[in-house]
Amino acid sequence: MDFQISDAMKDLLERAERHMEETVFPLEAVVHEKGFTGARAELEAARDTVKAEGLWAPQVPKEWGGMSMPFREHAQLMRVFGKSTLGPYVFGCQAPDAGNIELLVEHGTDAQKDRFLAPLVRGEARSCFSMTEPERAGSNPTWLETRAVRDGDEWVIDGRKWFTTGADGADFAIVMAVTNPDAPPHQRASMILVPTSTPGFQHIRKIPIVGEEGSGWASHSEVGYESCRVPVENLLGGEGMGFLLAQNRLGPGRIHHCMRWIGLAERALELMCKRAATRMIAPGKPLATRQTVQNWIAESRAGIDAARLYVEHAAWTIDEQGLYAARQEISAIKFFVADVLGAVLDKAIQTHGALGLTEDTPLSHIWRHERGARIYDGPDEVHKYVVARKELKRHGLELGSAR
Amino acid sequence: MDFQISDAMKDLLERAERHMEETVFPLEAVVHEKGFTGARAELEAARDTVKAEGLWAPQVPKEWGGMSMPFREHAQLMRVFGKSTLGPYVFGCQAPDAGNIELLVEHGTDAQKDRFLAPLVRGEARSCFSMTEPERAGSNPTWLETRAVRDGDEWVIDGRKWFTTGADGADFAIVMAVTNPDAPPHQRASMILVPTSTPGFQHIRKIPIVGEEGSGWASHSEVGYESCRVPVENLLGGEGMGFLLAQNRLGPGRIHHCMRWIGLAERALELMCKRAATRMIAPGKPLATRQTVQNWIAESRAGIDAARLYVEHAAWTIDEQGLYAARQEISAIKFFVADVLGAVLDKAIQTHGALGLTEDTPLSHIWRHERGARIYDGPDEVHKYVVARKELKRHGLELGSAR
Amino acid sequence: MDFQISDAMKDLLERAERHMEETVFPLEAVVHEKGFTGARAELEAARDTVKAEGLWAPQVPKEWGGMSMPFREHAQLMRVFGKSTLGPYVFGCQAPDAGNIELLVEHGTDAQKDRFLAPLVRGEARSCFSMTEPERAGSNPTWLETRAVRDGDEWVIDGRKWFTTGADGADFAIVMAVTNPDAPPHQRASMILVPTSTPGFQHIRKIPIVGEEGSGWASHSEVGYESCRVPVENLLGGEGMGFLLAQNRLGPGRIHHCMRWIGLAERALELMCKRAATRMIAPGKPLATRQTVQNWIAESRAGIDAARLYVEHAAWTIDEQGLYAARQEISAIKFFVADVLGAVLDKAIQTHGALGLTEDTPLSHIWRHERGARIYDGPDEVHKYVVARKELKRHGLELGSAR
Amino acid sequence: MDFQISDAMKDLLERAERHMEETVFPLEAVVHEKGFTGARAELEAARDTVKAEGLWAPQVPKEWGGMSMPFREHAQLMRVFGKSTLGPYVFGCQAPDAGNIELLVEHGTDAQKDRFLAPLVRGEARSCFSMTEPERAGSNPTWLETRAVRDGDEWVIDGRKWFTTGADGADFAIVMAVTNPDAPPHQRASMILVPTSTPGFQHIRKIPIVGEEGSGWASHSEVGYESCRVPVENLLGGEGMGFLLAQNRLGPGRIHHCMRWIGLAERALELMCKRAATRMIAPGKPLATRQTVQNWIAESRAGIDAARLYVEHAAWTIDEQGLYAARQEISAIKFFVADVLGAVLDKAIQTHGALGLTEDTPLSHIWRHERGARIYDGPDEVHKYVVARKELKRHGLELGSAR
Repeated sequence: MDFQISDAMKDLLERAERHMEETVFPLEAVVHEKGFTGARAELEAARDTVKAEGLWAPQVPKEWGGMSMPFREHAQLMRVFGKSTLGPYVFGCQAPDAGNIELLVEHGTDAQKDRFLAPLVRGEARSCFSMTEPERAGSNPTWLETRAVRDGDEWVIDGRKWFTTGADGADFAIVMAVTNPDAPPHQRASMILVPTSTPGFQHIRKIPIVGEEGSGWASHSEVGYESCRVPVENLLGGEGMGFLLAQNRLGPGRIHHCMRWIGLAERALELMCKRAATRMIAPGKPLATRQTVQNWIAESRAGIDAARLYVEHAAWTIDEQGLYAARQEISAIKFFVADVLGAVLDKAIQTHGALGLTEDTPLSHIWRHERGARIYDGPDEVHKYVVARKELKRHGLELGSAR
Repeated sequence: MDFQISDAMKDLLERAERHMEETVFPLEAVVHEKGFTGARAELEAARDTVKAEGLWAPQVPKEWGGMSMPFREHAQLMRVFGKSTLGPYVFGCQAPDAGNIELLVEHGTDAQKDRFLAPLVRGEARSCFSMTEPERAGSNPTWLETRAVRDGDEWVIDGRKWFTTGADGADFAIVMAVTNPDAPPHQRASMILVPTSTPGFQHIRKIPIVGEEGSGWASHSEVGYESCRVPVENLLGGEGMGFLLAQNRLGPGRIHHCMRWIGLAERALELMCKRAATRMIAPGKPLATRQTVQNWIAESRAGIDAARLYVEHAAWTIDEQGLYAARQEISAIKFFVADVLGAVLDKAIQTHGALGLTEDTPLSHIWRHERGARIYDGPDEVHKYVVARKELKRHGLELGSAR
Repeated sequence: MDFQISDAMKDLLERAERHMEETVFPLEAVVHEKGFTGARAELEAARDTVKAEGLWAPQVPKEWGGMSMPFREHAQLMRVFGKSTLGPYVFGCQAPDAGNIELLVEHGTDAQKDRFLAPLVRGEARSCFSMTEPERAGSNPTWLETRAVRDGDEWVIDGRKWFTTGADGADFAIVMAVTNPDAPPHQRASMILVPTSTPGFQHIRKIPIVGEEGSGWASHSEVGYESCRVPVENLLGGEGMGFLLAQNRLGPGRIHHCMRWIGLAERALELMCKRAATRMIAPGKPLATRQTVQNWIAESRAGIDAARLYVEHAAWTIDEQGLYAARQEISAIKFFVADVLGAVLDKAIQTHGALGLTEDTPLSHIWRHERGARIYDGPDEVHKYVVARKELKRHGLELGSAR
Repeated sequence: MDFQISDAMKDLLERAERHMEETVFPLEAVVHEKGFTGARAELEAARDTVKAEGLWAPQVPKEWGGMSMPFREHAQLMRVFGKSTLGPYVFGCQAPDAGNIELLVEHGTDAQKDRFLAPLVRGEARSCFSMTEPERAGSNPTWLETRAVRDGDEWVIDGRKWFTTGADGADFAIVMAVTNPDAPPHQRASMILVPTSTPGFQHIRKIPIVGEEGSGWASHSEVGYESCRVPVENLLGGEGMGFLLAQNRLGPGRIHHCMRWIGLAERALELMCKRAATRMIAPGKPLATRQTVQNWIAESRAGIDAARLYVEHAAWTIDEQGLYAARQEISAIKFFVADVLGAVLDKAIQTHGALGLTEDTPLSHIWRHERGARIYDGPDEVHKYVVARKELKRHGLELGSAR
């Protein structure tokens, strides 16, 4: 057991920190003012700087232009990138593109890689992942309404999806659709690549999330598929493999979220300390002299450090033993870190008082945006079931379904 | 001890419930779409309906057009009105006007009542209360920067305030300003009536609260006073009495908030139950069959009922023994009920999953809007100090200042 | 709605307080030293004092020597008696005798009343209630192993029970046994009166509860019935009515516990305040100056007051509308008040530091003794189910069994 | 960063696990029945087995008969030893002896090592550490009443201490006494070695801790020093160095506790899972099918794993950067792990229902015994202050004293 960080990694972390301070944090106000789409030029300029520094797409294989980082190192970087909700985008490791890249790298045909993967890894295209449906519980991924029916050498897709992140302005979607309703539950669905220019692909609305509609990558849409036809070659990774691929995709996706939540929580703690150290509650008496605030700082520090190590251990487990072996741990960090993040944000806001509710600090934005942390990529309640099931299996009990 | 509700009160509650369902709830979508100012016509129409029904301004003396209700009855009605953030406005008992009305009724001169109170109680004018300052901790109300200097028969006011609720479009402000910086801390400030048309009164900006700027009554502004001159007759209640009046004003103000929070929590629980009862997690299996959701419903029910009785007891104490005797209890319900509200809202959102983050239910709006509940009218931390101080006094210890 | 307490009640409360201070609190050390059985003489002397004062058995009908108090008034007194775990015993309203008295008053035959009830209400006999079984989940009261088989004009009882409070030295038990295993689940069991002198009644062991074995009333035993024969006249209230009677018995039993928990919590808060006010953390600086301790005091005050009102409302509901109407509320207070008690005790101990772990204050005893509050008379988890089921029924959903 | 455990370590852990199962767990019932002193023979036999296996005293230098393990490895072993409260004793790494050994190894003179250290490391003698005083807040270690006055070539010690663990039957105490009341606060006290056979050393009483008096090592005593004279050579490490040595001693002491708490929590989770998997709530339906229990298992698994990694990181930091660098982290794990332990124990008990309150599982014993975890070695409240102070220092604020 060795917690040492290599000098090379330290150097990367320092450079990443610097880019965050110099490039990314100032962008927050720009995006707040103009919206994501309006700030496109500034965002692309920031990405160019990052690429020039060799800090682009840490998780993507070098042959595709990334840094080929193992999870355990990516986790370290993400703690830095994650300090701003814009960080992962600027450094080329944002959801849902990161997960889609991974799917295409591992399961894409050569033709699919040429057409879909290449522009995506260069940051020239954006993609979305179209799985959750309004009329079906997201906690039950085997129960979908969207259908894809083979008609000659085309798939004809019909259905409705929502919370399709970044659909606004995306170049293509990976859609999860039932291709064989009579197969066993885990073999009913397939993944299909759908260019958003395909007739029948409908961008219905951007759904305001906790009051914010957003735009471009920073938005979440309701999307319709109406007799939407794509060639059979657009099937990703084999018919009936949708559920399996989704599991493979969501595991790393969850740990990506956990990594960046550590960054957000660290940012919130920094802001909390700064405020407590400088805000006077009486002449010459900073807020930090109040024991309640001291408690909040201490509890936040402890929660973040424990969460960080837990995430790093999960990343190391994926690297060493593979995704399957890490499944219980990924579910555990999903709800554990989301809880820590929520608690730290709440305390940071309370420390700021009314100021914490305004847009004069990034806290309010992060707080409301990340209420979803306990919901997206599987609600905490489902992840707790996954962890308990594995734990009970060690004691000889096989639990049935969570439902 | 008797928890019986009179038949007359039951009738009022039923009528109020009906108005909420028929008039107020449908207004929520209108205001969401057009903004408060844009929906002015619809809001005024709703108020007219209410007035015609004799349900206007329960807490205002009959001679001023209200219902002269004691606190204990007002608390019952507010549980109903409070189910929507628009309810108190429609029924004429919204902050900050309710508190300003009370100040004017009790401390206004006849001239002040004619000019300021009369249009306010009729709902023809709106007012704001200008106390909190950006550079001074709201938790320390004796430490203000805003100054009012006597110059002949005018007060000349200079300073900056924020979180002045409803300043956008208000007809006048009651401003808290230091009139004698050399007096003992609790006698330094006074309250002054300032028409917003007065030169030097500046509406600087509406401050977005948890991402929402709002408009009209439903907004919170930063406001400046720059050599703002008003006649000496605009002094409210005596020089140096600002702190005392503020205490008298904020006590009932806090219990008003607590009353309406009970309504909001009740609404959230209703939505939670409806969702749980109808959302299927597998064919034929509603979400309500999950024990975690059952726990949430049960804990919410218990929390709300305990909170409700606590608020009603505090209201009764004010009625029977006066505000001073109820001070500890008002502070206690302030943080107790805010906690219950926050917990119930969080569970209601989680029960709704991603839907709970959208504007398709009122939950997200209420949740983010009421994050302030633990901050406004004194942060929970200060109220806990007040409660502890009183409790310790019973055991012979006099605590000093909270700072 | 009126929270006024009558002058007569105030007088009773004052006298009860005085008896607690003068008679009961000093007994705690005696019982701690000699054990309950060893301190029998002192305890009986205390009971005599109480009887002489006319404060005996508040819940028992006057014709049987009690005070015929309604629940709402009994709740007030229990807040005082409950301050010591010995209080209810001294004042003649202790579990399980109180519940057994109620059963006998309502369902006993004249012969049963003569033989069992009369000495019990006079405090000359003690009884126990024998329901929970080691091999069956207490959360499922319809699933019992103990059998009573009719043989001529006798019942022959076989089975094993535990957590039979006060069995050590009791004169008789009311045992819950299956008399018809083929009946519908809720009609299988009956209640039977068994003198502990009956051959086949075995006192197996006193079970140490959180490390304390106790003795006499203050103990909880494992009890066996081996071919234990009693006359058929000992059937209480009709064959197959066991479950129904148990429900009727446990409802008031639960509220009795809640009432006395309020007393215990109040006592803990008093001790917390006293310690905080007098313990110095530096010369001249009492522990109460620490904000964390102030928070604990404030949160405890609020929790206790809310819990108290909630219990009083439930008591009032039983009085006015009967037990059935109060069922949801009784389940809600069961887990709500147990939580408040646990939280207050934990804070009181932490405020005392190492001293709180010793027997030099009553806190440690109360804390460990009342860990069971969340378990006995139905675990909190079952009561949450009961509350949720009722709440969901209002929204049209009928939940099935909790299991 | 590498979480790999060496094969040698894996082998040690397996052997340690085996010894726990075969030797230590069965001892629990023996000690429960006979008391620690009564079970002395069995305990010593267990120690002999362990010594024969080469598993004795992991943290003690090899030259003194131990295993010279770095903290990071000791932490791993302690997770196993810690599963029973008896484990550390059997394996020779129990408080307070472990800390006293460390003090003597680092600061003892050769004569002191011969006389006091040698028998201690062999397990032939026991010692105690006498610091906490009844009349002084343990949270303020610079404020002591006990005095040692030099008289010729003797120290004359007067004072009273409590919570002196293992004083019953100890061979010597290390006492903390003020030797220079006029020095700066942190230089007033010194440590002195006092054989318990010294006239004037008084064993006043074993203090029952949460109801249990215990005996021998497993007890905590009140101790008096009355004109207790020891030679000046018994001074440990220099006059006025008491506070410094205490800090050095308590840092590792705290992490030792955290390590073994992980073991206790792991044990509780195992028991919880076993119970949930085998206890039926209805025919064929194990308790583990209830979602609430699943939540408890999942939350416990996550809490324990995060806590474990946090402790291991702190251990690694001590190894790599020394105690001073790890100070903030040691304070953080102290309160973080104590919280996790408390939460897991509470859930484990609730899962067992009434059985969890009995002595039929080790849970009740552990639960009540470890209520002290949040108090001993500095209450959580003080450790939060330490963590906050360090965190705020990074932001330029120097906090004053915690008092």
